[in-house]
This record gives sequence, C-alpha cells and structure tokens, in this order.
Amino acid sequence: MISVAVVDAETPGNVGTIARAMKNFGLSELYLVDPPELDPEGEAYGYAGHAREDVLPNAREVEFDYLVENFHTVGTTAVTNEDARKHVRYPFTTPAELADSLREAEADTCLVFGREDIGLTNEEMARLDEVCSVPASAEYPTMNLGQAATVVMYELRDLTLDETQHPDAIDRASEAEIEGLYDQFDAVLEAVNHPEEKRAKTGRLFRRLVGRAHPTDREARTLRGVFRRAANFASPPGEESQR
Amino acid sequence: MISVAVVDAETPGNVGTIARAMKNFGLSELYLVDPPELDPEGEAYGYAGHAREDVLPNAREVEFDYLVENFHTVGTTAVTNEDARKHVRYPFTTPAELADSLREAEADTCLVFGREDIGLTNEEMARLDEVCSVPASAEYPTMNLGQAATVVMYELRDLTLDETQHPDAIDRASEAEIEGLYDQFDAVLEAVNHPEEKRAKTGRLFRRLVGRAHPTDREARTLRGVFRRAANFASPPGEESQR
Repeated sequence: MISVAVVDAETPGNVGTIARAMKNFGLSELYLVDPPELDPEGEAYGYAGHAREDVLPNAREVEFDYLVENFHTVGTTAVTNEDARKHVRYPFTTPAELADSLREAEADTCLVFGREDIGLTNEEMARLDEVCSVPASAEYPTMNLGQAATVVMYELRDLTLDETQHPDAIDRASEAEIEGLYDQFDAVLEAVNHPEEKRAKTGRLFRRLVGRAHPTDREARTLRGVFRRAANFASPPGEESQR
Repeated sequence: MISVAVVDAETPGNVGTIARAMKNFGLSELYLVDPPELDPEGEAYGYAGHAREDVLPNAREVEFDYLVENFHTVGTTAVTNEDARKHVRYPFTTPAELADSLREAEADTCLVFGREDIGLTNEEMARLDEVCSVPASAEYPTMNLGQAATVVMYELRDLTLDETQHPDAIDRASEAEIEGLYDQFDAVLEAVNHPEEKRAKTGRLFRRLVGRAHPTDREARTLRGVFRRAANFASPPGEESQR
C-alpha cells in the first residue's frame, strides 16, 4: 500500500491537485501535517476533481512523527546533495528507480511532499527513510508541488493501478492482411504503369513505411480496398485487374 | 525541437502551470490558440515560476491551422477510442512510447493540449498527426490539464534536456572498501563473542543487506570506522583487536 503525505502546505489548491492525481493513479490514503484549512466550498475541493468525493474528505490530519513511526517514508526534493559528504539528500532515487525498488519490497510506503516554497526541511528529511528526486532542468529544477507529486505518482502507477482506461493492446492487423495490402499496392503500380524497373524498389519503400506504423486491421483493410478500386479504375478498359 | 500548444484554455493559471513545466523540462516554444487574457499581474504569471521570465512572455498566439501546417502534431487525450473502428483517438501512443518514437525521428513536433473540460474536439483531433494518452485509472482517467501536460513533458525529458540537476551517478564505494566493511563486521562478531557456529551465516546476512543498498564511499568508510571502534571496545583488556 502506498500512501501520500503533504507537510505544511500553504495553499489549499495544491492539496486538491495532489488529491486529484492520487485518484488518477489509484492511490487513496492521504495524510496531512499542519494543513491549511480545507473549505468544502474552496480551492482544495475545486481542484480535486472526483477526488473531492473520497480522497479529500477522507484525508487524515496527523503529526510528522506518525509518518516516521508507521511507514517506510520517501521524502521528495527537487534539489539533492551533490555527493556523499552530505547525506540528508543523498543518495537519492529517481521516481522510476523508486518504482523498481518498491516493486520488489512490499512495504507500507508513504510519499512525503513538503511546502510549496522550501519543500521539506533538512530536519524533516533526516528522519525519512529514502530520498526521491524528479530529474529536471539543471537550470530550473524546482517543480510546482502538485506537478512534482503528479510525476512521482505517475511513475508508481504500475504498483497502484489495477487497470488503466486504455484497451489492452492495439489490435494490429494480421500479417496476412498486411501482406495483402502490399500485394494490392504492387497491383496499383502495375495498373498505373509505374516504370517496371522501379516497381520492386517502390514496393519495398511502401513496405518499410507501413511496417514502421504497425497498422490496425481496419487501417490495412480500408487502404487495401482503396488500392483495389484504384487498380480497377486504372486498368485499361476490357482488361481485368488482378484482384 | 519540441514545442507546446494550448488550445482554448479557459483559466490563465493552467497556461502558467504548463509554462512552468516546460521550463522544468527544457522546452521553450509555447503557442496559444484562443488563449484567455494573460495579465502579467495575474494567475498565469503567478503560476509560471521562472517561466514568467521567458516562456510565458515569448508565447505566440496562433491559429489552429498554423499548428497543423507547420508541425508534426501530437494531440493529447485522457480518453481514447477502444479499437480501430473509430480512429479519431485510435491508435494512440503513451507518453513513454512517444518518447521512443520521437527519439528516432527528428521531427519539428508540437504537443497539443486542449481545454480544461473537454480537451480537444473530435474535429481538432482529426487534423492532428498522432494521438497520445497518459495511462491512468480506469475509474477516473481524466487528469487536470496542467498535470497531464507535465507528465507528457516529463516523459520526453531525455529529448529536451541537456542536463538535469542530478549528479551523474551515485559515487558507490569501491569493492575493496565494501569488502573491508564486511571484514570489519566479521571482526565485531568475533570481538563480541557471537556464537562461532553462527558467524559465517550472520556475515552473509550483513553482506546481503549492504549489497542491496549499494553503499557510497562515505557510508562504507563511516560504518567501517564505527565497527573498528566497536571491536576495539569489545576486545578483552590486554588483547589487541584485529585491526
């Protein structure tokens, strides 16, 4: 189980934004340390989308100690230490590495996010178990709180989501259907009198283009139908097209 | 070059949020179709962080046609079509797949984001070249505009960032240093009279724990020093510790 904690946020909107991303990525347990007031008519609920129905009203206000005592805690920070001489923010993992390591260990984990302006203090960070940092521009790595939290939860989605909104796999056309499309393209080349010495090369060009795109069944069949009509129209009168 | 376009956004705050994420992930060209008014004293600039200095004031207002004519366009949507019978939003790529495909093709690409409530219309989507969708909860896949854009740009960071804020690699301790730590732990076991028949097994346990954690040079040396002192303290008086 992966939970989320927000420490000392100033703006209710950010709490709402984080609650929404939690619901988008299948998390539900939200802990708030020193939160701003969350007025059901205010920004937190306004920004929370459907999370206003469950994640946000079910959020629990707790002390920082509660997080330390009950979870494997992961503190997030934009700015890490540079090397091992300072270990408050070093070593750290990236969100993708965190996903890999949590996949192996089934820990009750809490992702801890800090204030809008300064994030988590060194004192807070020192008490947390792991450090996580989103790789961003060297020039401007400091992300907005809600956006940073969204990226971390996005990367952990395989651990928290049973099912996404996406269909399981693109229904790529069968090889037979795609080969039929290539054959029909060759028939067009013949019907339009494409120079005979160039036909094989042009056929390969078409094969490469379509091959890269992995057409769906529908795409392959529709295009094959269009080419069949094109070959028929182009055939000299009285002569049967190939298919 | 990867650009970003926001079509018909209602709230200036979302434009600012997107501008900030652009700067966080190394993008700079922002196009706005039918934007809300962006008051330099208002929410767009307030949410943009340092992007208020460049990305936002340099944003260009254009027509939708301009995007279609000048870019390889990628439309983003939370909700895809289910299969190839409808192809306005199908097939689609995920942000990670998009990163892979753009890595291979150096296209002038524009990521196109739609309205807060309904995203891009079917008419708009039909004119764009590719469809991209963030995998999220089947129960609630609709992300906030600024958060969805942040996730897409985060996934493309390898293509847009020369350098992140992170040091190149964690400076893992040398094998010699780590082996020295294991030896020192064994010396502690001996000094504290850990049952002789259990020493090898306990040494292996320690080796496995530390091995998984890939200690830094500083961590290995510090811990080795602590164990050296522990072994010295534990050694019977008059007897020399092993190191």
